[in-house]
Amino acid sequence: MSETVYKKALKIHEELQGKISIELKKDIRNLEDLSLLYSPGVAAPCLAIEKNPKIAYEYTMKGNTVAVVTDGSAVLGLGNIGGLASLPVMEGKAALLKKFANVNAIPIVLDTQDPDEIVMITKAIAPNYGAILLEDIASPKCIDIENKLAKDLNIPVFHDDQHGTAIVTLAGLINALKLAEKNIEDVKIVVNGVGAAGSAIILLLREMGAENILAFNSKGIIDVEKYYDSAVVTKLQAHLQTPRKDMTLEDAFEDADVFIGVSVKDVVTPKMISLMNDKSIVFALANPDPEIQYDKAKEAGAFIVATGRSDYPNQINNVLAFPGIFKGLLKARAEFVGDDIKVVAAKAIANTVIEISEDEIVPSSFDEKVMDNVSEAVYEAVLKKKE
Amino acid sequence: MSETVYKKALKIHEELQGKISIELKKDIRNLEDLSLLYSPGVAAPCLAIEKNPKIAYEYTMKGNTVAVVTDGSAVLGLGNIGGLASLPVMEGKAALLKKFANVNAIPIVLDTQDPDEIVMITKAIAPNYGAILLEDIASPKCIDIENKLAKDLNIPVFHDDQHGTAIVTLAGLINALKLAEKNIEDVKIVVNGVGAAGSAIILLLREMGAENILAFNSKGIIDVEKYYDSAVVTKLQAHLQTPRKDMTLEDAFEDADVFIGVSVKDVVTPKMISLMNDKSIVFALANPDPEIQYDKAKEAGAFIVATGRSDYPNQINNVLAFPGIFKGLLKARAEFVGDDIKVVAAKAIANTVIEISEDEIVPSSFDEKVMDNVSEAVYEAVLKKKE
Repeated sequence: MSETVYKKALKIHEELQGKISIELKKDIRNLEDLSLLYSPGVAAPCLAIEKNPKIAYEYTMKGNTVAVVTDGSAVLGLGNIGGLASLPVMEGKAALLKKFANVNAIPIVLDTQDPDEIVMITKAIAPNYGAILLEDIASPKCIDIENKLAKDLNIPVFHDDQHGTAIVTLAGLINALKLAEKNIEDVKIVVNGVGAAGSAIILLLREMGAENILAFNSKGIIDVEKYYDSAVVTKLQAHLQTPRKDMTLEDAFEDADVFIGVSVKDVVTPKMISLMNDKSIVFALANPDPEIQYDKAKEAGAFIVATGRSDYPNQINNVLAFPGIFKGLLKARAEFVGDDIKVVAAKAIANTVIEISEDEIVPSSFDEKVMDNVSEAVYEAVLKKKE
Repeated sequence: MSETVYKKALKIHEELQGKISIELKKDIRNLEDLSLLYSPGVAAPCLAIEKNPKIAYEYTMKGNTVAVVTDGSAVLGLGNIGGLASLPVMEGKAALLKKFANVNAIPIVLDTQDPDEIVMITKAIAPNYGAILLEDIASPKCIDIENKLAKDLNIPVFHDDQHGTAIVTLAGLINALKLAEKNIEDVKIVVNGVGAAGSAIILLLREMGAENILAFNSKGIIDVEKYYDSAVVTKLQAHLQTPRKDMTLEDAFEDADVFIGVSVKDVVTPKMISLMNDKSIVFALANPDPEIQYDKAKEAGAFIVATGRSDYPNQINNVLAFPGIFKGLLKARAEFVGDDIKVVAAKAIANTVIEISEDEIVPSSFDEKVMDNVSEAVYEAVLKKKE
């Protein structure tokens, strides 16, 4: 971040003292208003909800409100800064949900990083929310936390660092493969980084039909026997090719069609890119510094390059996904969000781009059609499953 | 509640689907706004808060935001309806805090009623709040929960069912005693009901200098030896007169100057009122049906009568207290709220009434001066203590 952005950002945060506020949807002007919206009239919706908890969707904020829950253990490029220090990010997320999807979101920044406590607390505060957005929780505990919550709660639970990135990556890949005239079933895909985002990407690639996936982490190729991180591997082992145990990341680039990096900067060299098949597709998503810079990858022969940066084409930005997804889930009163719904969202994002080109495989973050398309697609897909 | 109010209230709640919403304080219009309010600029306030947690008051919503926490175990006249069913009340409370004090309040309705879990969860979610408003938690556990939270958190914790009622009652009593030309040190006070509100009222009466207090619950006069409820008694035993163990509530009315009921309807008879001293003061606060009806008490000779009802004079309404108190506490960045501050608030409410009369011992709920007077008085008192 430049010195200018740093200072400007600090100044604007100081001026605002909070990016969001609570506002009344209807003014309380007099004793009659008070008697209807508060005592004694408020007893009417309370009694109705006590009798039938589902009716909370009709009488309260529940149906359009999301909890943004974090322990601040894996924030942006900042690492483990804790709940309170991550509050500006959570307020920002809430602001984006309002801006793009007119969804109410409330930051819940926790003063604990214990996975069991996070699960217990999130379950306890869940009643007044229509969905839970987990945010910036470190891998691998995020996977376990999300799974437990999804199992126990009857509202959707969605860890954006996993699925938001995965959905937008998949959306970009769908359009990139169209331009490359390749099918997802046939391509060889190399994924570097199997943390929160990487593991979710692999699961969605499989859901879309990808069959040839090689995955690496900082210790080398993912191999169930030697891999220490059981929570991730249990979910992934069914989906990965059985690799040669001594295969390096560079080896894997040979004849690869797609590279997806969600790891650290500069681990990919121009030479690796040159080993890939024709019309190669490179997602270098490490933030703020990608696995290989956009220009370098293009010079080395990459057909399409996407990064997490807004100053290059093809920015893989979560904001394309989560507002529309939550809007759609809430509208459909979804109780769960599965990989099938995530693929629906990815396709909706991909289809929003009218004229696909090498430098436009995903829509712009401010394309107003994205949110509508995603929310409608998710809404309809959830309703169809309910039938 | 009349059938009409019931139906109207249900209708308005259905139309609104939530009485409050989250709104952006500043629009996000383009990529530059996004880069300052979200990634990458948001890292600047995050890093500043990580270094110095106190600075969260400058860069986030913390300084003007209150959590309204409940387990729904003792709601209004509804009893134990649970967290979710109490959400319309908590939204109402949040709406009132915004309307009267421009404070952001967020409902936290819990899916647990275990005191230890309530304490643990409230502590864990506390970082982004400048104060905690506990609401509608059953007695006696509410006392223990509040004490533990107040001890462990460095923000004020205030259970409105205890202190809100106590403060407004005391405000009314201050003015009533002025009209009766009596001093609080000299009067005999009978309190019926030592739950959340009753015990807090007794503590504030003592803080104000009252010396002659007799307290009753449904089992009779409060006597430490036979009284089962240790949490309440431990706090109160130092403050009560040693009573005759067989004294009845009616016996206690003999020569009493003040009666304060926070119990159940119709436990006070006209005969009891007639036993009181001249210029007797009666607070019959059971809701919605008082210990003795306003008219009956007046007919029986009561000098001043106050109830919880808006359709009679002298409504003891919490809304006179909590908005201004929280505004003042937040503005002063108070870390604690003691009984001394509560007395300051009571005096400020009392002083807002310009022309005290038998039928106007407290201001109207919509008197705009109340909130300003209370918040200023609380703000200054907290600052003075900090010096």
